[in-house]
Parts: sequence; structure tokens; C-alpha cells
Amino acid sequence: MTERPDLPALQRRLAEFAAARNWGPYHTPKNLVSALSVEASELLEIFQWLTPEESARVMADPETAHRVRDEVADVLAYLLQLCEVLGVDPLAALAAKIERNAHRFPAPGERPAPEGN
Amino acid sequence: MTERPDLPALQRRLAEFAAARNWGPYHTPKNLVSALSVEASELLEIFQWLTPEESARVMADPETAHRVRDEVADVLAYLLQLCEVLGVDPLAALAAKIERNAHRFPAPGERPAPEGN
Amino acid sequence: MTERPDLPALQRRLAEFAAARNWGPYHTPKNLVSALSVEASELLEIFQWLTPEESARVMADPETAHRVRDEVADVLAYLLQLCEVLGVDPLAALAAKIERNAHRFPAPGERPAPEGN
Amino acid sequence: MTERPDLPALQRRLAEFAAARNWGPYHTPKNLVSALSVEASELLEIFQWLTPEESARVMADPETAHRVRDEVADVLAYLLQLCEVLGVDPLAALAAKIERNAHRFPAPGERPAPEGN
Repeated sequence: MTERPDLPALQRRLAEFAAARNWGPYHTPKNLVSALSVEASELLEIFQWLTPEESARVMADPETAHRVRDEVADVLAYLLQLCEVLGVDPLAALAAKIERNAHRFPAPGERPAPEGN
Repeated sequence: MTERPDLPALQRRLAEFAAARNWGPYHTPKNLVSALSVEASELLEIFQWLTPEESARVMADPETAHRVRDEVADVLAYLLQLCEVLGVDPLAALAAKIERNAHRFPAPGERPAPEGN
Repeated sequence: MTERPDLPALQRRLAEFAAARNWGPYHTPKNLVSALSVEASELLEIFQWLTPEESARVMADPETAHRVRDEVADVLAYLLQLCEVLGVDPLAALAAKIERNAHRFPAPGERPAPEGN
Repeated sequence: MTERPDLPALQRRLAEFAAARNWGPYHTPKNLVSALSVEASELLEIFQWLTPEESARVMADPETAHRVRDEVADVLAYLLQLCEVLGVDPLAALAAKIERNAHRFPAPGERPAPEGN
């Protein structure tokens, strides 16, 4: 049974999971960001020898698709655990970044939004 | 004004953002996963020379705190854009992974849950 | 003036450089391997949006060529400094690995060399 | 039997190794730099949960020491193969970088060398 909770619920579940296993001393921001970076590379490893076209078809193979989903989950898990120990709200951080990027990269034919918005 | 939408809403906004700028040809899974890995390393760069204790205090400095939030947003943005082009649901992937890990790493004093669950 | 010394000479020069600046306390294996990984990603960043064909032509642009050489130097520098603090001989490690790979991946039309060699 | 050749000899041997196995089409600069970055992360993985003190003792355990040497070899191998396809001389690049850094980071008690040198 796999329900589909929202991001804050998953972040809390990961925090309880780590607390129940006494992983706190290992979960320094520095260690968690190293683990995040290692997991992102494990995702990259799946694609490293593929052409762009082959990379667009990875999900057609069930075994590779499972591996991709597994590594996506690992990246997200370490990102959420890092945010937990740093007190960063990842959704607010991303929403703020998207706002800034809308100013930095106006779409073609779009007037740049006024900076003060 | 920075509201705080949920993850699927941010994923859609990123997809529209890329579409409006014709970034589709660049957004192959291989390129997006490279960018994800590069952003994770930019986050690591902030911590690379810090002791574990210093790494726990990074958010006390407003400038570093801003940089951390910015890189967290970049990692999450590329992860969501990768999931978009691959058709992966990141919340479902993480929920499934947490279930598997609960079986693999039972908490101390906990009976392992039956495999069939 | 840039002479072209061999690898062990460059490794010694880097060790003296760090010692003269009292960088020893920062140069734990963990920190150096983080820095190595960050520099490898800075090299990747140059290539992340390029097609395979474009990636084969990066050295044609003098500015990009300089950036590539600079990042190659950074990767090699941190690898040598890591080897220094760990007491690893990188040339011996690579020679041993090539021998092992010659057994694992016999060339087409080649008889696998006997394992005991 | 593991002799200890110099870096250019190892670079040539790697090039012959790849040519004999027809790996040329896979060895685009973009793919090789991805592989380099992935191998650097595999080295980081060994250290990710260690304290600085534990990281300084990794070579005391024969099995971990072997793993470290193996990953160092992989990083160096992909760096040399990348240099091969790009026509970059890694030793010259590093020597030039050390010269530049001697200007940028004068040692304590050292007069900065004149820029024109």
C-alpha cells in the first residue's frame, strides 16, 4: 500500500524515521548534502553513456524505470532531510526562485514584470 | 509576493516556464540530470571546508542562508523538471521508497513488518 | 613561464603550497574529496546543455578552452592533494586498475589473459 | 605485475584500450566528463557519513583502502580520457594553474610576485 502524501508529510515521516533509528549524529548538514550529491550522481550514472535520444526512452525499460524512480526518491529524501536540519522550507524556496527567474528571463513577447512585484 | 503552492503546482509552473521560453530541446533527461547533479554540487560547495559544527550553523549568516535556499530551490527545480520529462511522480516514488526502507531498516525494538504488506 | 613537470613533482609542489599557507587543518580527506567532486561538477557544468556534437567542439572557442583547462587543473589538483593526505600513489593505482580491466574486458578477438598473471 | 609508468604513458595505454574495444562513439567529452563526475562521487560516498577524524583513518582498513585506490584510479582514468579527446595536456594545465594561484594566494610573509611574471 503506497498512499501519496504531500511533501511536508513526507518530510515529517523522514524525520521520524531518522529519529527512531538514532541517525541524528550522522545527519549534519554537511553529511546530508554530501549524500544528496552522491545520489544525484547515481541518477546521472544511469544516463552517462546514453545518447540524448536514448535518454528520452529510459522509462520504456521496466528495470531502468524502477532504478530511475528509486534514485529520484533518494535525491528527494536527502533534500528533504537537509531542509529539515537547516530549517529551510523547500516549497517556499522554489516559489521564490521561480518569481526571481520570471524577472531574469522574460518569455519572448513578454514585458518584463516590474521589479517591485 | 511569494505564495506557497504545493509540489505538483510548482512542477506545472516550471513546465509552463520552460515551454514559454522554448527550452524543450535542451531539456532532455540526460541534460536535466546533469544540471541536477551540478546544482547539488553547488550546494556542497557551500559546506566543503566547514567542520560538522560550522555546517550546523550556516543559516545564522543571512547571506549564506540566502545562498543555501537558492541552491535548494535549484536542486528541487531540476528534479521536478526531470520528473516532468520522464513522467515520474516524485511524491509517489518517495512514498514507495520510505515503505521499502521501513522493511529494510526496522527501528530498534520494532518487529520487522511482514514483507507482504 | 610554465614548465611541464611530472605528476609527482606537481604533487610535491601542491603539498608545499598548502603547507606554506597553513591549509593543513582544512585538508582532511573528507574535505578534499568534496572539493574534488565539486570541481568535477564545474567541469560538467560547461557541457550540461551541449549536444554530443557541440561537446566535441568546445576547444574551438578560446574562452571555453581556457575554462576547460582551468577546471581540469582543479580536478587534478584536488585529486593529488587527496592522494597526498591518504598516502595513495595515483599512478600505481591507475596502472593496477588498467591491469584488472584488461582481464575484465578482453578486447574483441583477444584471448582473456590468464587470471594468475 | 604492476609497473609504475608516468602519466603520459598511462594516458596512451587508456587510449589504446578504448580503441581496441571500439569505445570511441561513447567517449564524447560530455559522456566522459559525466563519468568523471560520477566516479568522484563514488569516492565521496566512502566518506559521506564519516567524521573528519574517521576520514583521516580510512586507509587503516585494508578493504576500504582498496576501494579508495580503485576509485582514485577511476577518477584519474576518466580525467585522462577526457584530456585525450579534448587535446588538453593535464600536467601543463596544472602547472599553469599553480603559477596563477601563487600570484592569487601569496603565502604569509611572502611579497606577492609581480603580476607580469
